[in-house]
Amino acid sequence: MSKNAVIAGAGLVGSLWAALLAKRGYQVDVFERRPDPRERGYIGGRSINLALSHRGWEALEKAGARETLEKIAIPMYGRMMHSVAGELTFQAYGTEGQAIYSVSRGQLNMELIALADKSDKVRFHFEQSCRRLDVESHSAWVENHATGEAYWTTCPLLFGADGAFSAVRNSLMKTPRFNYRQDYLDYAYKELSIPAGANSTHLIDKNALHIWPRGNFMLIALPNIDGSFTCTLFLPFEGNISFEQLHTDDQIQAFFQHWFPDVVPLIPDLVSDFHQNPTSALVTVRCSPWNYQDWALLIGDAAHAIVPFYGQGMNCGFEDCSVLDEMMDTYQEDWAAILSVFGQERVKDGNAIADLALRNFIEMRDLVADPVFLLRKKIEAHLHEKYPAAFLPVYSMVTFSSIPYSQAQKESVEQDALLKAILQLEGIEQNWPNDPRIDELFGQWLENKKA
Amino acid sequence: MSKNAVIAGAGLVGSLWAALLAKRGYQVDVFERRPDPRERGYIGGRSINLALSHRGWEALEKAGARETLEKIAIPMYGRMMHSVAGELTFQAYGTEGQAIYSVSRGQLNMELIALADKSDKVRFHFEQSCRRLDVESHSAWVENHATGEAYWTTCPLLFGADGAFSAVRNSLMKTPRFNYRQDYLDYAYKELSIPAGANSTHLIDKNALHIWPRGNFMLIALPNIDGSFTCTLFLPFEGNISFEQLHTDDQIQAFFQHWFPDVVPLIPDLVSDFHQNPTSALVTVRCSPWNYQDWALLIGDAAHAIVPFYGQGMNCGFEDCSVLDEMMDTYQEDWAAILSVFGQERVKDGNAIADLALRNFIEMRDLVADPVFLLRKKIEAHLHEKYPAAFLPVYSMVTFSSIPYSQAQKESVEQDALLKAILQLEGIEQNWPNDPRIDELFGQWLENKKA
Repeated sequence: MSKNAVIAGAGLVGSLWAALLAKRGYQVDVFERRPDPRERGYIGGRSINLALSHRGWEALEKAGARETLEKIAIPMYGRMMHSVAGELTFQAYGTEGQAIYSVSRGQLNMELIALADKSDKVRFHFEQSCRRLDVESHSAWVENHATGEAYWTTCPLLFGADGAFSAVRNSLMKTPRFNYRQDYLDYAYKELSIPAGANSTHLIDKNALHIWPRGNFMLIALPNIDGSFTCTLFLPFEGNISFEQLHTDDQIQAFFQHWFPDVVPLIPDLVSDFHQNPTSALVTVRCSPWNYQDWALLIGDAAHAIVPFYGQGMNCGFEDCSVLDEMMDTYQEDWAAILSVFGQERVKDGNAIADLALRNFIEMRDLVADPVFLLRKKIEAHLHEKYPAAFLPVYSMVTFSSIPYSQAQKESVEQDALLKAILQLEGIEQNWPNDPRIDELFGQWLENKKA
Repeated sequence: MSKNAVIAGAGLVGSLWAALLAKRGYQVDVFERRPDPRERGYIGGRSINLALSHRGWEALEKAGARETLEKIAIPMYGRMMHSVAGELTFQAYGTEGQAIYSVSRGQLNMELIALADKSDKVRFHFEQSCRRLDVESHSAWVENHATGEAYWTTCPLLFGADGAFSAVRNSLMKTPRFNYRQDYLDYAYKELSIPAGANSTHLIDKNALHIWPRGNFMLIALPNIDGSFTCTLFLPFEGNISFEQLHTDDQIQAFFQHWFPDVVPLIPDLVSDFHQNPTSALVTVRCSPWNYQDWALLIGDAAHAIVPFYGQGMNCGFEDCSVLDEMMDTYQEDWAAILSVFGQERVKDGNAIADLALRNFIEMRDLVADPVFLLRKKIEAHLHEKYPAAFLPVYSMVTFSSIPYSQAQKESVEQDALLKAILQLEGIEQNWPNDPRIDELFGQWLENKKA
């Protein structure tokens, strides 16, 4: 087979995958609807800041991009919860030194494009997009948005990395036996910004992911290297407390003053940002299979767009690249085998992280303000310290390991049962650091799991 | 508001809806991709014969089409099961005289087009299809397949009745907050034909729906007025007994000889039909909402394509038209209200019949050959006879009433529990016609339901 591939989309996953394929000696053509962000500047607008974690770093390491990216990433060691009264509570994500890393989508994307572009095997075609496929002739219809021209191009091997609203996937949807679903939340999000203080200092703790949990809505903030924070408000579209209730300057000001009083002085352009930035929807996309025969494969958000609440969307997409890279060894670059196995087997991991991310929304917006939940987190950390081999909290599995998402999801059901039993013990809130009943319950739980 | 409407699709639901709208004084333009079936003949090929039941007839009655269509419909009073040994078992669908009616999709479609076309308010545009929408300007992009021309047309009010693979829906899918899913079965179907006997006689019982249930696959046959039967084989795509195992003439012949020996002499062109007719997939489509604001509405398969095993696909689509017609009175033709209420409220009924149809596949291919299941059906009929007001079998609710599908689905869970309890009674297979324990269980069940 010729070593040629086409990638639709030069977003995060498309450009990383181009770099990895080029390393393997493939000639890669990448088509991207938008202009080259290195020339024209990245058009962000409605991008939540991203949190790189273990799976993401592993893939970047494979591509030799770790060192460069560490320079633009800020470690966040835990969640910092802000109560309405302005009290702060910190909850570590993992053990000491473990962190997730805040990066700007735009910067990361430009670095990855530059990385792939270093290879003379990668050709980027900006302002050109694969609009639809002819699966019979293995061709893609490419439109050049700069010139208005359009043409069919034959793709020996096609990767659809064209995001949550993938045109490649839209074509595959019309082929028989392609299962698909898209589900929107009744919530929307809107980006706001806390500018840097004097001398590019961060006005709130730089090394934490800030959350203002308010039950069925929340505000979050992630640090940027220039001293600013990117904030995101998640709020229902409709209802008593919702975007549809926030129209006038006064309504917006009053809403923030009431629910997020400590934030108001930090966002000088609050009202104008609120009006100007779009109110965007949150979608989960699931499909199966991800491959079309031995020809095309969906990766990244095109295969599995998820809600952002576990910080795993990009990490899952990057892990797609790691897994494929490893399969190139396992199957000796037999793409028929790789596409078929990946396209059918990895779906369960995509579905698992989709479910986990939906569930984590409730955790972030509501539970993190609940003392029982915080106690649970402490007991989880305690169990992990005491039984490091036998107990790894699900959050750590997802964030600090490469354990398949589907396995983490299975484990989450089991850990829920264990922690529920522990939290029902009388006096547990005082006794947990030295309570033999915990060890007893844990022993039983472990035995049941093995049985 | 002007009395103008556009309908995408002149299939069964599109043409019936055109007739009903015209009766209300609306000027209707109907765009249909295919040529006029009245001129060129209906291109069938992979259409399962249809079974008209109560909901369908009700809608046809509203349009004044009942009498004409009764002439081309054949009543089927029950299922006729064929065992491998050729033994026949009959199971009535309802009470005496109740039937579902076999019609040819092609004939029915032509009659409905002719009906709508009688009104000078309806204009059919054949070989022209709405390919995509511009929801902002309320326009549809229409392609004329005869001339190659294409143009934007403004639609004051748009109904997408363009089937399971609806282009209208495909455009709405790209609007925010449109939930969608398509799920394929691992089964395919293929049409075959039992020709008429001498003098257009039917070679097997004309007034039954014939089933050859074989566990995880089946053959069915529905009568046509010319004496022939349209047969459909439902079989897994892959596996031990599957379409992928049937390639050579010998394999096909041996398969039918082994599993359907009584059918072989009735299908003279078995092998050539098998090769020639397509192997088609079975999809369930669910989406929500069915409306786009106050402008567009999906109806029929475009909104709710379901598998054919409850015989309700068309009936549900026709019922869409009845419900809308009644809402025109209720809401005094306020289309903003009608679209919003219908587009959000009727979704649960579409989802319910989708679930019920999937479940009925197991009933048809497997359970109808099970003596316990047939006993259950007898006890259901017995209960209905004894307590007509309090007990209506779910099959009758769906088939012989207009009780909302969602209510029938809820009832099915409750009836399952009752019948399970009854079937566990010792000696029930002999005692059921006069067993006081049945009445006792039924009394309790009814009380629990009311509580």
